[in-house]
Amino acid sequence: MERTAYCGQITSKYKEQHVTITGWVQKRRDLGGMIFIDLRDRFGIVQVVFNSDKNKEALEIAEKIRSEFIISVQGQVIPRAQGQENNELNTGEIEIMAEKVEILSEAKTPAFEISDTADVSDDVRLKYRYLDLRRPKMQENLKLRHQVKKVFRDFLDGEEFLDIETPYLTKSTPEGARDYLVPSRVNQGKFFALPQSPQLFKQLLMSSGYDRYYQIVRCFRDEDLRGDRQPEFTQVDIETSFMEKEDIQSMIEKLLVRLVKEVKNVTIKAPFKRLTYKEAMERFGSDKPDLRFDMELIDLNTIAQESSFKVFSSALENGGMVKGLTVKGAAKQISRKNIDALESIAKIYGAKGLAWMKMTEEGLTGPIAKFFKEGDTGSKLVETMDAEDGDLLLFVADNKNVVYDALGALRLHLGKELNLIDESELAFAWIVEWPLLEYDEEAGRYNAAHHPFTKPVEADIEKLATEPENVMADAYDIVLNGYEIGGGSIRIHKRALQEEMLSALGFSKEEAHKQFGFLLDAMDYGFPPHGGIAFGLDRLVMILAGENNIREVIAFPKNGKAMDPLTDAPSVVSNDQLIDLGLRLKDKETEAE
Amino acid sequence: MERTAYCGQITSKYKEQHVTITGWVQKRRDLGGMIFIDLRDRFGIVQVVFNSDKNKEALEIAEKIRSEFIISVQGQVIPRAQGQENNELNTGEIEIMAEKVEILSEAKTPAFEISDTADVSDDVRLKYRYLDLRRPKMQENLKLRHQVKKVFRDFLDGEEFLDIETPYLTKSTPEGARDYLVPSRVNQGKFFALPQSPQLFKQLLMSSGYDRYYQIVRCFRDEDLRGDRQPEFTQVDIETSFMEKEDIQSMIEKLLVRLVKEVKNVTIKAPFKRLTYKEAMERFGSDKPDLRFDMELIDLNTIAQESSFKVFSSALENGGMVKGLTVKGAAKQISRKNIDALESIAKIYGAKGLAWMKMTEEGLTGPIAKFFKEGDTGSKLVETMDAEDGDLLLFVADNKNVVYDALGALRLHLGKELNLIDESELAFAWIVEWPLLEYDEEAGRYNAAHHPFTKPVEADIEKLATEPENVMADAYDIVLNGYEIGGGSIRIHKRALQEEMLSALGFSKEEAHKQFGFLLDAMDYGFPPHGGIAFGLDRLVMILAGENNIREVIAFPKNGKAMDPLTDAPSVVSNDQLIDLGLRLKDKETEAE
Repeated sequence: MERTAYCGQITSKYKEQHVTITGWVQKRRDLGGMIFIDLRDRFGIVQVVFNSDKNKEALEIAEKIRSEFIISVQGQVIPRAQGQENNELNTGEIEIMAEKVEILSEAKTPAFEISDTADVSDDVRLKYRYLDLRRPKMQENLKLRHQVKKVFRDFLDGEEFLDIETPYLTKSTPEGARDYLVPSRVNQGKFFALPQSPQLFKQLLMSSGYDRYYQIVRCFRDEDLRGDRQPEFTQVDIETSFMEKEDIQSMIEKLLVRLVKEVKNVTIKAPFKRLTYKEAMERFGSDKPDLRFDMELIDLNTIAQESSFKVFSSALENGGMVKGLTVKGAAKQISRKNIDALESIAKIYGAKGLAWMKMTEEGLTGPIAKFFKEGDTGSKLVETMDAEDGDLLLFVADNKNVVYDALGALRLHLGKELNLIDESELAFAWIVEWPLLEYDEEAGRYNAAHHPFTKPVEADIEKLATEPENVMADAYDIVLNGYEIGGGSIRIHKRALQEEMLSALGFSKEEAHKQFGFLLDAMDYGFPPHGGIAFGLDRLVMILAGENNIREVIAFPKNGKAMDPLTDAPSVVSNDQLIDLGLRLKDKETEAE
Repeated sequence: MERTAYCGQITSKYKEQHVTITGWVQKRRDLGGMIFIDLRDRFGIVQVVFNSDKNKEALEIAEKIRSEFIISVQGQVIPRAQGQENNELNTGEIEIMAEKVEILSEAKTPAFEISDTADVSDDVRLKYRYLDLRRPKMQENLKLRHQVKKVFRDFLDGEEFLDIETPYLTKSTPEGARDYLVPSRVNQGKFFALPQSPQLFKQLLMSSGYDRYYQIVRCFRDEDLRGDRQPEFTQVDIETSFMEKEDIQSMIEKLLVRLVKEVKNVTIKAPFKRLTYKEAMERFGSDKPDLRFDMELIDLNTIAQESSFKVFSSALENGGMVKGLTVKGAAKQISRKNIDALESIAKIYGAKGLAWMKMTEEGLTGPIAKFFKEGDTGSKLVETMDAEDGDLLLFVADNKNVVYDALGALRLHLGKELNLIDESELAFAWIVEWPLLEYDEEAGRYNAAHHPFTKPVEADIEKLATEPENVMADAYDIVLNGYEIGGGSIRIHKRALQEEMLSALGFSKEEAHKQFGFLLDAMDYGFPPHGGIAFGLDRLVMILAGENNIREVIAFPKNGKAMDPLTDAPSVVSNDQLIDLGLRLKDKETEAE
């Protein structure tokens, strides 16, 4: 019996037609002499009826059918009995009167119910991923991922970008995160590394004149895992020659406008908001601010200086700062206990405490209100914070990083807690004017804030040797709803500047040559000005799917311990395999010695 | 100066317009007071003229310009002087009178000339790959690769296939080729393997109901390298549920018809020729026959039996066979020395010698002709081999494999040598009815001819335990011009059969469970009938590009020693990296001990 239609697509348009469908049994109800089966495929669910009056043989087979059996059914599409329609289903107006049925595969009772509401632990879901992937939400997520990639490709193909593949077996570089290594058998004692990104290869493609490159490519980082990190992740990697930063940005805006229109039917406006890194930190306490709600951080240094509250003034004396949040109308909602919870959030980010007041009809109240009774500090505070009756005011006084991190986290927490966020909104923005370098206290040297190939802005190049901390990068990140979804920059294309940059990062001439000699050499043979951007596809799809973890948009992810409970990877390998590679396990040696 | 047009696209349609172009200097001719520059970008070459009458300043800058400099030029498109047109160029009717020029990047004299005719060693080409990739042929090849992928994607997207990504960090399996291993840091002593293909994951996706899956995906095999092998290669991986072999084949034919029409403008007809494996071997001595020319292998067993030529009859007595080739009209062309060369080819494939005769006006001549004078063996031979005056007849008598391999290789060699091949033809064919298993003399057991998940044809299933050598597989390879470009099969979807298959391959129950337990378990929970195909993208693009080595269609390939001379990968890594992974090099230990 050859399939003639998909279950989920049989609407009333098919009425009276004879169809053959195949699918998985979602549910079976036996009414005695009559059996109803909900049959599921990629496109949805349709109801099949087995009726002894119509076909006794089919009914007898249907009696053996259980959940997750795969069956093939031939039958006629008929309208459901009046009152039996199901408006929640595409196919809810009809049912299929079975004439013939064949069991293609039997099934044991699955480890968990195939539904979005089944409450299953992450490791069980991953161990039985083939069952988990049957859940409607997972199917939607993977379809969405397909669509997102298709829009990227269609757009970039249309703009004359070439999809060019770069190697997965490549060279280990000490910069950035830890590499995954691949021992070489032919060249024993040497190792390939899996790429953290195709950065250098795409730059070389620019030097070869390919002009516009893209690739949807797997990247690898052997880092400790977090909710939105996986050992392998997918990047949409884009690079162009002879384009200015602004041109790249507006092209990407065009792409994203089209993306969210096509996959979410949401209309957004370009150009996107542009915030400098400094502004994003000062106003939102984050370099990836969630712009779906306001509640900005308020600078209170001047008032703090005048106030008699020691916590504030001593923060200033130690070179720190005081900032606050006005939580509109939250004074009544939020109890003492709630405030303790907020304080413990602030403490995660290093704050020693969380000062607070409430604005009431009688003015400022709360434990520290008394410090703002003298002079006009109280009224200045009320004015600066735009405090109105019923508002809750929160304060952190500390060094810059603690203030930003703690208030940034509180802002996000309260945004969610108080339902200030329109979940349907997609708030894109560019974060620009990044520092080129960041000082690594531990290592006693500068690291590249983006990567060592990012170009300093033209005006700052001469400061690279003398005041590296004040050099700005020609870099641009794109953020969406509080996540960084992409990062890009104009790259260095001149050898002298690339050498100077590597030197600022502490590379000796020899080290620079050993690691990046091929790039530096390439810059001797004609290298165009170029730049690009890379999107984290997993994270972008996660946000568009309304999920909180990238595992929900990856077909076969690793768990929190970088393992796959399904295949049991990584696993022990045979001694012969290790001998081939010229390797020994350290533990084994120890035993032997 | 912002680019307004691409060099290679400025045809006479642009006449009189002012344009700004950027590109690489292909050639510069200084005629004194006038300089001509051929400027190159991804789309081609355009001629730029610098003239002291028109713009002295630009001319002065042009004097400094050398090959491979990158420049930006603003100027007017004018017709070339009469007689100066170049018909070989798109842009050959016009030139650009430069008004303004800027040097964007200087260049040293490259290690080799940027042209398709430059004669450069493979390792030099790979070391300076960024220069090599500037050659017009490499640019065409990578563009073709992009187009081929795009046609695959567009077709499969249109047919409701979902592009779903599978893991690169996965589990090592002992079946098939050697795995590339990736040591785990978090789980020291354990290893991931890079996938040889996403076979099991795509089958699991079928069990999860995705119905139609594809992926253009990197695969890895740590094998010794050959001309058309690379440590990493790209596969177009396709899998479907509920489709019969014939439906899959005709869908793929539709895809390939469209592909060659779109990328080569060649019209081919479907359905393609179908040959059984047996027929392909018997007629062409190859399971991937080049069907662009005839010259089939001719069965001579009956004649050999009757003849007095010992070499022939003893081959038969030893259970072997005798086959011949009729090389039309080659008797005069091919000297004794040529025949020695042909014999040495046959010997590569294990033949002890190459017997030959020539057909002349006087009948058969040559050293063994005397054995065919008695009775009617000579006339039977002439008839069977359709030998005419001027034909060369070649013979190999040996066991089956040697006869097929040696004559198959000679056929291919002569086809090329004698120009029997229409290089513009694309001869697709399906090879079907493959043996399921092949006996491994060394290991004393059967191996899967395709892979352990290929389904035996329904009628042969019962023979799996009793006469495995006679079981046919439900498999289909697709060949093009003498290359296998894709292989597919219907897969096993029932646990009992999969277990039986693994048992036929010598797996114990425990080993089968350890390696493939997750697949077997999945078959307990509803697994649809399914099948698919995988194309070797590199090889397909190589053939379409008219190249002989897949390195010519890969941007950054490895050399014959599995190394990348550009980045110097694989390379030595730091001791800290090894300690993190719990590994020691065997050599190092030996030193220490």
